[in-house]
Amino acid sequence: MTSQTGRFALDPTLEADSLPVKKLGLCELRLIDDSRWPWLILVPQRPDIVEVFDMTHLDQTMLSFEFGLVAKPFKMLTGCDKLNLATLGNAVPQFHCHIVARSKDDPNWPKPVWGFGDRVPYDKDVADAFIADIVKAILPV
Amino acid sequence: MTSQTGRFALDPTLEADSLPVKKLGLCELRLIDDSRWPWLILVPQRPDIVEVFDMTHLDQTMLSFEFGLVAKPFKMLTGCDKLNLATLGNAVPQFHCHIVARSKDDPNWPKPVWGFGDRVPYDKDVADAFIADIVKAILPV
Repeated sequence: MTSQTGRFALDPTLEADSLPVKKLGLCELRLIDDSRWPWLILVPQRPDIVEVFDMTHLDQTMLSFEFGLVAKPFKMLTGCDKLNLATLGNAVPQFHCHIVARSKDDPNWPKPVWGFGDRVPYDKDVADAFIADIVKAILPV
Repeated sequence: MTSQTGRFALDPTLEADSLPVKKLGLCELRLIDDSRWPWLILVPQRPDIVEVFDMTHLDQTMLSFEFGLVAKPFKMLTGCDKLNLATLGNAVPQFHCHIVARSKDDPNWPKPVWGFGDRVPYDKDVADAFIADIVKAILPV
């Protein structure tokens, strides 16, 4: 999504459905406010990106790096069985990437999380503590 | 999946569900044999990869490059509305990435393709022609 100045602005639906975690070099990292699954999104802070190839090659490489930065600590922190990584954009066109920590006893395993049931928002204290743990896990210094 | 020699071997389920398109530098590119959606998979030809971070950083960058190589021509060739890119691995652990060409009038838009209904295999002639078009689109020289 582009604001009228041509600068990056977070899509309002993404903003409403998620909580800020940390701004990385390229992406804003956010926690989807759905306590059914530990679920992060990476949103490149660039205007007018819909498909991965709308980014420069350098940004695509940065995105790969930031996936790497987040994915392993997030799996270790959550103790999940498998990460699901995806960029779909069927509902919200602004390019964003999902990092979902899946467990074999979760509500829709092994099927995808997208489009399944309704979000169950976190209690604020739980979300705040989880976000602090995520930041500490991915940026321990 | 690892063969007994420790070399890469394509998972038998992936092999049964898809058709070979082309071996790229890192990945084997295959067409999922499901005529409901134009659907490719990229499988890094490395043993013992389950999560993205099981690959070296160089391989992760190569994967990003090969996504870029395939994604734009595949969108142009299919005329789809949106690409869905993902690595899930809930059913088949061997690391593989999906590139699905989605259209607003497809059978499960805007929900995901995974776990929806049953595969509808291509007629052989149709698959052969489509694969030839894909190879020409991504590697035109």
